[in-house]
Amino acid sequence: MKIVLDAMGSDTCPEPEILAAIEADRQNPGEIILVGPEALLKERIKAAGGDTAAVQIVDASETITMEDKGLKLALKAKKKNSHTSMAVGIDLVLSGQADAFITAGNTGGAMTTAFFRMGVIPGIERPGLMGLFPTRSGPCSVLDIGANPDCKPEHLLQFAVMGSVYANRVRGISRPRVGLISNGEEAGKGNELVRGTAPLLKASGLNFIGNIEGKELFGGEADVAVTDGFTGNVLLKSSEAVARLITETLRQELMSSTRTKIGALLAKPAFSTIKSLLDPGEVGGALLMGVNGLVFIGHGRSDARAMVSAIRTARKAVQSELLAAIKTAIQEQLNAVQSPEVK
Amino acid sequence: MKIVLDAMGSDTCPEPEILAAIEADRQNPGEIILVGPEALLKERIKAAGGDTAAVQIVDASETITMEDKGLKLALKAKKKNSHTSMAVGIDLVLSGQADAFITAGNTGGAMTTAFFRMGVIPGIERPGLMGLFPTRSGPCSVLDIGANPDCKPEHLLQFAVMGSVYANRVRGISRPRVGLISNGEEAGKGNELVRGTAPLLKASGLNFIGNIEGKELFGGEADVAVTDGFTGNVLLKSSEAVARLITETLRQELMSSTRTKIGALLAKPAFSTIKSLLDPGEVGGALLMGVNGLVFIGHGRSDARAMVSAIRTARKAVQSELLAAIKTAIQEQLNAVQSPEVK
Repeated sequence: MKIVLDAMGSDTCPEPEILAAIEADRQNPGEIILVGPEALLKERIKAAGGDTAAVQIVDASETITMEDKGLKLALKAKKKNSHTSMAVGIDLVLSGQADAFITAGNTGGAMTTAFFRMGVIPGIERPGLMGLFPTRSGPCSVLDIGANPDCKPEHLLQFAVMGSVYANRVRGISRPRVGLISNGEEAGKGNELVRGTAPLLKASGLNFIGNIEGKELFGGEADVAVTDGFTGNVLLKSSEAVARLITETLRQELMSSTRTKIGALLAKPAFSTIKSLLDPGEVGGALLMGVNGLVFIGHGRSDARAMVSAIRTARKAVQSELLAAIKTAIQEQLNAVQSPEVK
Repeated sequence: MKIVLDAMGSDTCPEPEILAAIEADRQNPGEIILVGPEALLKERIKAAGGDTAAVQIVDASETITMEDKGLKLALKAKKKNSHTSMAVGIDLVLSGQADAFITAGNTGGAMTTAFFRMGVIPGIERPGLMGLFPTRSGPCSVLDIGANPDCKPEHLLQFAVMGSVYANRVRGISRPRVGLISNGEEAGKGNELVRGTAPLLKASGLNFIGNIEGKELFGGEADVAVTDGFTGNVLLKSSEAVARLITETLRQELMSSTRTKIGALLAKPAFSTIKSLLDPGEVGGALLMGVNGLVFIGHGRSDARAMVSAIRTARKAVQSELLAAIKTAIQEQLNAVQSPEVK
């Protein structure tokens, strides 16, 4: 197995990537390929105390930055002999020299590069970005969290199929519960998109539990939750912002007097639980589902631990033959829809 | 000034309503009108130690319950001589016998009853539900939080005008900052609705600060945030759910050992700040904006304190002549759009 790690992705790159690569290589020698400017990476690996001979490096002289967007990004992403670390890394997966690609870089850049170079799985109209949300009882896979601001019901059905396969293969859930994010649990509630999607999910053979709201989502009642990329992105970012508002206000208040400081010290184990509940590093990034290859996109703020976590998830996805399973499931869904009984 | 309070709204009605009415009447004698079954209310007022002669009661023998929805609700809401507490209360405002109506009952029921009986302000196509979200620096008015799952750009512009007037009149903010909730701050980001709304807001003369994400919303960078009723509702409910997940997990963890219990006891003042930051009772309900009258809709879980808070907000809205100010602002917006310079 070979996992390609974009060395030039995270906000503080390439340090977290290099540390993660050294650690991953220690666990599974020969598994990691770092892509980025070779000379720089070798120098930094040495500086970090790593073995430059152990970690495989594939040279990529350019990077896609946060400034790359719109047409400029599309052209960079499509370019035949592109030297960006994302393009070089994704091409390694495409050519079969590697099994998965991980980057903590520009999300739009990674999605666009993957989309143009890998194409989509037959039967998929739009790739969807899947993130794991913390809940009362383990994570919930939510998609789309930002690839497609405007979606059609068919896209959400495809997201549900892909999310279910992931929950089954990678997370080991036998009949993943699929919820449809809505403004009301009752059937018939929702916007036009939700009202159009619910019947498709009901007829899909998936374990559709109906419309869900925040309460059910964060209460852990669904293993997979589908929504359009606009709502999913707003949901993701506001959840993070609410969590930050609470934890930072609490921290501030706890530091405001000697009494509360002592209290905070004693109560520390409780705060650690909250921290790990909310820590994106525990999860390790989003998965771009629907493109013809395994592409993981980590948070720009990812540290080495988050990268190691992403590598672990990617390894699991490769081992469980996630991509092949998704292809089969989508094909089955298409066949079911085209069969005369359903028509 | 007369404020009508639906005595049969909250989950534990009429107790919180009665306690709030007694308290409000103590502060401003003769201000409150309770609507509901007269005999029952008198009995309960007496039981609560209140003066049955002091609090004015208008009899309403029926109630709209959580079971009322769809066509059944619409018919109940429209019915000419309706005896539901919502219809009776709203009719008092409509006939000029009262200045504002407050209910903690079925949100859909209140919106439908108000819409059918009061109609909309000239120039408004859709009423919007406005809620106050806690942020790092005071509340932000968000609308629509659930009246219209599918919106057009014009609706969001109208929400922005109404939200700005509220922030100005009731909250005393001179040039309220208006944000457009989106999946990315950059201009050009967003779904179809956001991309269509941004130019309207830019041309509106409002203090439009651009697209905002969760970070800006909960960071307190906007006084008013507009979105469609689907996204707003998902945002509201997931924010509440995230806050509950964090606070309940924290409570559980704090109670898990003697050490953390002592810590929690010492740190109590800090937790109280968080509690009041997140407590909907501090805010006191949502405002249905765009109907031809002042209608406040509280949370079903409202207690007496939340009701008193809603009464205080309603009082402020009446005193500041909110409704007339909204009518003027909408008219000005319409005139500006119809003027040849803008065309």
